[in-house]
Amino acid sequence: MNLAIVVYFLGWIMNLEALLMALPLVTGLIYREADWVYFGYVMLALATVGYLCTRKKPKNELFFAKEGFVCVSLGWVILSFFGSLPFYLSGAIGDFEDAMFEIISGFTTTGASVLADVEALSHSMLMWRSFTHWIGGMGVLVFILAIMPLAGSYNMHIMRAESPGPSVGKLVPRVKTTAKLLYIIYFSMTVAEVIALLIGGMPLFDAMCASFGTAGTGGFGIKALSMGYYDSAYLQGVVSVFMLLFGVNFNVYYLFLIRKPKDALRCEEARVYFAIVAASTALIAWNARHFFAGAWPALHHALFQVASIITTTGYSTVDFNLWPQFSKMILVALMFVGACAGSTGGGMKVSRILIGVKSVYNELASLVHPRSVKVVKLEHKAVEATVVRSVNAYFVVYFIIFAVSLLLISLDDFDFTTNFTAISATFNNIGPGLSMVGPMGSFGSFSPFSKVVMMFDMLAGRLEIFPMILLFLPSTWKKS
Amino acid sequence: MNLAIVVYFLGWIMNLEALLMALPLVTGLIYREADWVYFGYVMLALATVGYLCTRKKPKNELFFAKEGFVCVSLGWVILSFFGSLPFYLSGAIGDFEDAMFEIISGFTTTGASVLADVEALSHSMLMWRSFTHWIGGMGVLVFILAIMPLAGSYNMHIMRAESPGPSVGKLVPRVKTTAKLLYIIYFSMTVAEVIALLIGGMPLFDAMCASFGTAGTGGFGIKALSMGYYDSAYLQGVVSVFMLLFGVNFNVYYLFLIRKPKDALRCEEARVYFAIVAASTALIAWNARHFFAGAWPALHHALFQVASIITTTGYSTVDFNLWPQFSKMILVALMFVGACAGSTGGGMKVSRILIGVKSVYNELASLVHPRSVKVVKLEHKAVEATVVRSVNAYFVVYFIIFAVSLLLISLDDFDFTTNFTAISATFNNIGPGLSMVGPMGSFGSFSPFSKVVMMFDMLAGRLEIFPMILLFLPSTWKKS
Repeated sequence: MNLAIVVYFLGWIMNLEALLMALPLVTGLIYREADWVYFGYVMLALATVGYLCTRKKPKNELFFAKEGFVCVSLGWVILSFFGSLPFYLSGAIGDFEDAMFEIISGFTTTGASVLADVEALSHSMLMWRSFTHWIGGMGVLVFILAIMPLAGSYNMHIMRAESPGPSVGKLVPRVKTTAKLLYIIYFSMTVAEVIALLIGGMPLFDAMCASFGTAGTGGFGIKALSMGYYDSAYLQGVVSVFMLLFGVNFNVYYLFLIRKPKDALRCEEARVYFAIVAASTALIAWNARHFFAGAWPALHHALFQVASIITTTGYSTVDFNLWPQFSKMILVALMFVGACAGSTGGGMKVSRILIGVKSVYNELASLVHPRSVKVVKLEHKAVEATVVRSVNAYFVVYFIIFAVSLLLISLDDFDFTTNFTAISATFNNIGPGLSMVGPMGSFGSFSPFSKVVMMFDMLAGRLEIFPMILLFLPSTWKKS
Repeated sequence: MNLAIVVYFLGWIMNLEALLMALPLVTGLIYREADWVYFGYVMLALATVGYLCTRKKPKNELFFAKEGFVCVSLGWVILSFFGSLPFYLSGAIGDFEDAMFEIISGFTTTGASVLADVEALSHSMLMWRSFTHWIGGMGVLVFILAIMPLAGSYNMHIMRAESPGPSVGKLVPRVKTTAKLLYIIYFSMTVAEVIALLIGGMPLFDAMCASFGTAGTGGFGIKALSMGYYDSAYLQGVVSVFMLLFGVNFNVYYLFLIRKPKDALRCEEARVYFAIVAASTALIAWNARHFFAGAWPALHHALFQVASIITTTGYSTVDFNLWPQFSKMILVALMFVGACAGSTGGGMKVSRILIGVKSVYNELASLVHPRSVKVVKLEHKAVEATVVRSVNAYFVVYFIIFAVSLLLISLDDFDFTTNFTAISATFNNIGPGLSMVGPMGSFGSFSPFSKVVMMFDMLAGRLEIFPMILLFLPSTWKKS
């Protein structure tokens, strides 16, 4: 382990976070709120430590996969620690573990909240809370890659550790350029959503927070009723559409950008993703039809909730906890599916599930015809054997972490539905679950221990598990 | 597909089932119950159809893996169809789908019941119900292998399709001899349990039913209180011990038989299995301590329930549905773990989970050191790559079937705990779940559609999924 280079990178993360806190600080100044000052303190602390860590570049530039993983996982922990301080210091969130839970939920784009009354927060705090979704959505280290004058082996290793999906989809051969392109697409789409919401009459502050939450597929609302507050089919429709768009593999947008629309439309993962959305929407609209005044409202709200859950955003327009069991189970199933790889969404990802299903099909074929050996294909190309192996390992470790987490939080003795969906909602970075943690509930009643378990799950879910586990492996820390 | 040979095998299954029905028939005669006659009718029907199918051996003896799978899966369906008839014809179970559910639950050693009052059944019906556990535990086709004068490629293909576990553990090179040895061990241990229970003062009829249920890891009780009826620490202790013993890989007993006790004690799977049992028992005895009069009763009942669930038997001495959430979650986790491969138990099997965990560990190691390639080892030997691949495919298809089943039965609109544990309990061949399907509940309230879903799950669980799915694959039925 080349600790010096890791510290150097962590320093850059702190510098960047200091910079990003300017947004809530300015928000506080605009709204003449007293608590902007806490952002100032934390920015100062971040910049000081960051400066010390990045004063000079270490001589030993060795940077392998494990340095990449450690940078990313520790980076996210540090980001969360400092990010929670404005909440805690200002007293907006009284307990430190609650402040940590809230901010980890923000950065990991989960959107699960411990707050009983979100509308009590100041504008600057609400802005920071939603802005963390935007920061975490595309990844802070990918951002550093995009703007820092770095070359060499760092890039790929960091990209691989922070990007969602079974394999890293480089848009272009250079990682740095890929990172820049990704941020350009991300930024433009966010601006587009803000404009669309402004057109519908949403105030700028609300439109920005809503768009940050959509873009990062986060889901923190600034209203107790989430998107149900905006009683406008247009506004809710805009959010539905943008949630779905941010759940698509960004490769697709890149292909549109370079004017290869045919290739973009051929994207297998995106097709399956939209097919799942369509089928789930239809089934829920039918099953929960008695909750709505007609077919259109049923389809509208079914689509919103489906888009919100499959993209792991977590906004809601209605309390789906009241829906029939079948509709709720479809949503729970979508929690696990998740969005496309290479998007800002969480969950297992459609492509992983496709690889899994196809390898099952191959296994069945080889049972019938033992001598036939087939290769798993995705996006019309053969999937490397190492990727298939890694996807399988992911599934196994996914279910082990899920089971252990469920076991640990059940010590609080809440009901099974609450526990099961609380882990589903945090580990898959969704936000709301069912029962006590439904859209109108909160995670506040869990014990501090359970909250720590779910903080780990949120980070593990966002970083696709392996980087977080490697932190606990002794061999990661051996001197090389 | 060589249909002629499949029909020939199915004929033998029917002949065998006709023979096996002699036991409940004789029981009925002994107790002077009128419903023995229904066993007589069904025996006649079975023997007639069986005779027609086995009159002459087909000329085309081609028998490959797919013929093996089809023989096993169709064989189990036919076994269940005829097996349900005595219940249905006698009126002991009024609805045909209930009778099918009950008997599939029997043969697959699940032990989930639709009956509201089991004590209302006659002795002959109770005997048949418990006896199906014993028949299904070791497998009816393996039995046919053991007694029929067959040679050639049949044996291995059938053994592979019907035996539980990721790979077939042949005790000796000849499959036929292996099958005989397995049945000898199985029979002797069953007799040993009957004797041990008789010594404790249990009536012979009860002792036989209890032992059939233990040996097959089935779990149908003949009393409404299950094993709670026998208020004797000795009797319950005997059942605890035998449940655990029947959950051990039978390889271990073979090694003892051929006087290699050291090799037997080195069995990695069995060690992990006992370690899980010990840890779970200790945790539950601590967590649920307030439910018992002292440390000993707590350990006694914790051990019984743990042994019952991990071996997928499903007996109970107390209503564990009332325990704290943490204890219940440990039991739910054990439902998925299941017993050892090569035992009569269900679930995923300890060895599969070991292979899964070890391949995750290898994957992590290869992330830290990308050039190192490690092989998964089990029982001190390298696991073949095809077995690892097959285990991974198993996990994927396992969770897909689980999710789809959960979705389908949630159309009945029962609560999540009921639905989730109903699928866990049937797919893993356990029996009781929690909430409505807890140890004191029944599966009777589900709709016929949900019952069909769970019948499929029970069969798929017992036959380790692939044989049942292959039935629905067009390529299985192509002419070769």
